[in-house]
Amino acid sequence: MDLDFIKTITKPAETKIVLIVIDGLGGLPQEKDGFTELETAKTPNLDKLASESICGLQQPVNTGITPGSGPGHLALFGYNPIKYQVGRGVLAALGIGFDLKPGDVTARGNFCTIDENSKVLDRRAGRISTEKNQELCKLLRSIELPDVEIFVETVKDHRLLLVLRGEGLSAKIIDTDPQEIGKKPLEPKSLSSEAAKTVGLVKQFLEQTKDVLADHSPANMVLLRGFSEKPNWPTMDKAFDLKSAAIAAYPMYRGLARLLGMDLLETGKTIEDEFTTLEKSLDDFDFFFLHVKGTDSAGEDGDFDRKVNVIEEVDKEIPRLTSLNPDVIIVTGDHSTPSLMKFHSWHPVPLLLWSKICRADNVKSFGERACITGGLGPRFPAEDLLPLALANAKRLEKFGA
Amino acid sequence: MDLDFIKTITKPAETKIVLIVIDGLGGLPQEKDGFTELETAKTPNLDKLASESICGLQQPVNTGITPGSGPGHLALFGYNPIKYQVGRGVLAALGIGFDLKPGDVTARGNFCTIDENSKVLDRRAGRISTEKNQELCKLLRSIELPDVEIFVETVKDHRLLLVLRGEGLSAKIIDTDPQEIGKKPLEPKSLSSEAAKTVGLVKQFLEQTKDVLADHSPANMVLLRGFSEKPNWPTMDKAFDLKSAAIAAYPMYRGLARLLGMDLLETGKTIEDEFTTLEKSLDDFDFFFLHVKGTDSAGEDGDFDRKVNVIEEVDKEIPRLTSLNPDVIIVTGDHSTPSLMKFHSWHPVPLLLWSKICRADNVKSFGERACITGGLGPRFPAEDLLPLALANAKRLEKFGA
Repeated sequence: MDLDFIKTITKPAETKIVLIVIDGLGGLPQEKDGFTELETAKTPNLDKLASESICGLQQPVNTGITPGSGPGHLALFGYNPIKYQVGRGVLAALGIGFDLKPGDVTARGNFCTIDENSKVLDRRAGRISTEKNQELCKLLRSIELPDVEIFVETVKDHRLLLVLRGEGLSAKIIDTDPQEIGKKPLEPKSLSSEAAKTVGLVKQFLEQTKDVLADHSPANMVLLRGFSEKPNWPTMDKAFDLKSAAIAAYPMYRGLARLLGMDLLETGKTIEDEFTTLEKSLDDFDFFFLHVKGTDSAGEDGDFDRKVNVIEEVDKEIPRLTSLNPDVIIVTGDHSTPSLMKFHSWHPVPLLLWSKICRADNVKSFGERACITGGLGPRFPAEDLLPLALANAKRLEKFGA
Repeated sequence: MDLDFIKTITKPAETKIVLIVIDGLGGLPQEKDGFTELETAKTPNLDKLASESICGLQQPVNTGITPGSGPGHLALFGYNPIKYQVGRGVLAALGIGFDLKPGDVTARGNFCTIDENSKVLDRRAGRISTEKNQELCKLLRSIELPDVEIFVETVKDHRLLLVLRGEGLSAKIIDTDPQEIGKKPLEPKSLSSEAAKTVGLVKQFLEQTKDVLADHSPANMVLLRGFSEKPNWPTMDKAFDLKSAAIAAYPMYRGLARLLGMDLLETGKTIEDEFTTLEKSLDDFDFFFLHVKGTDSAGEDGDFDRKVNVIEEVDKEIPRLTSLNPDVIIVTGDHSTPSLMKFHSWHPVPLLLWSKICRADNVKSFGERACITGGLGPRFPAEDLLPLALANAKRLEKFGA
């Protein structure tokens, strides 16, 4: 839904909304006629909650589209993920918890191997170790450029983050990664005249990089992709009049939450810790995003049973959640990650929304097939979830007289 | 879904998608509490396939909108039928298998009757026979115009096709059909200065037509409608990275398929022939469109039992189809044609999509009412079907990181 429209009808209230995101929640049966991870898990508390909720299956982006974690979460927060796209550089920064400032220009880099003619032999430098990456990033930090601060940070394996900080920078620069071997890295080029200064700086950085790394084959050069700046989006507070907090352990999700102006709450490593953090902070915010990562990791590992276990672990915390008496509870995922596929997928994600005025449907258990006939339907657009939560929290005015 | 968006995430794969279009598939019960044609037909094979598929009812255009064959098919091929509209002239050309070239200007014509003051007495010339039409078209082919080639082709009854071929033509011309009797045919007029030359040519054509047909009342004049050019749309190959083939016997559907860059496979007249063609060509293409016409013809004739029989005939071929092990199978129609109404209708069309990773729902038989509770819902937008097929065929990248 259009944020400018929603903004015209939000109103303050004392109500609390809790969104539980079970990452990669949706799944598939392992064999024909079998059950999915969620259908297999024993979830008496989620089933009871579902029976008092309005249920359905939601699509973060669109039919058939497999969402990355960024788009998947943005949709749940009410931001259309095709309209609100994050650059690769910014995502990499979020992923390692780098605190981007407005005006910073960031790019994702790969260490790569070039030959004596500067042609790329390996775009990933033989996938060097994270430790090696850290050593080399330390060397690259010796590079100095006029008028700007440079940050070179290890992401993982062969991947790194470059950030330039200074006045008058622009991210309108094309990738230097030629995307195939046997070609030279592309010269940095501007997409717009405003990027001329930045292009000059990136060129100098790459020239010096080549010198610094000369003796460090296979990692003797760097390719840059996805030049981008921290987007200037409306915060949850501005867009929805919601004082919002994130309870999430992983940097990527904390970074996304911070982009939208959420407070980041300190929490422990277990699911139980996260619910404890929620209990302690309930009075201080209107909206809580609580993120459970283990389901997605298990799905990506193809570990059906572990994914089932993580779901059951979440189920055990539900009574603690309901006893806090929030006004609206949402349980869903940011996308499906079927253990069968070991990857994110396009399959719609089970969804329940509970409130005392939600108008419960006939769904009696929380699962992929059970939710098909729920009141939110089998293809609910995820970006409409937040407006529906606001409505259930009595935070939206009537539209029109 | 937006083709430009889909294009950014398609990827090649070795997978096969087969789309079976049972023309006018959807129906209505003949009496209260009765069954539709599809519900009446004995379809053990389609029912078994449905029980392993994700099912639903799809709408080719929008709620309450009755699609013509053009929009009905375009939607199934992933082209939004309101955005991708075909002119009447082009449709007529497709319908008779006329091979339009880029730049050709085409219009659909009616033979009509005019009086001595040139006022239209009958817009359809007493619905002359197709044979008479053929005779008169032969006469009109004697007309010559400077710098352009003219084609005059019989469509059926009083309907004909006019095509002008040459340099610098434009279809931005209004209809000459006044749409009511007692009025003179309208003068050809341009909607844009670029059509001035074409308007001049059409005027000359109509003046000569009046002379040529002077003694052939009731068919003593021609009215022209729907000036149009072959649209320059992205082909299935460009839009979806799909090497595509059509197995269809009727010119209209072959023409539509050719517009989208599909290869036209030679096939026989029976449904069995069409499936044999599919068997033989499976290795050569990624996407197959197999068209069954008999259901629509029976529906338009109001012949409930014949429509049931054609559906049962398709059902018999399903085991041959599944034994080919395509990756994705879709069975649906381009619109409903209830025998009760003897006409196309707006009713959503039963749909099943089978793949090993489709996440089957609880639908156990293929029919209008059974599909309502399917995982694709009761109002699935047909234009999203192709993206979903691509996803199931593992031909789409993840969106965003």
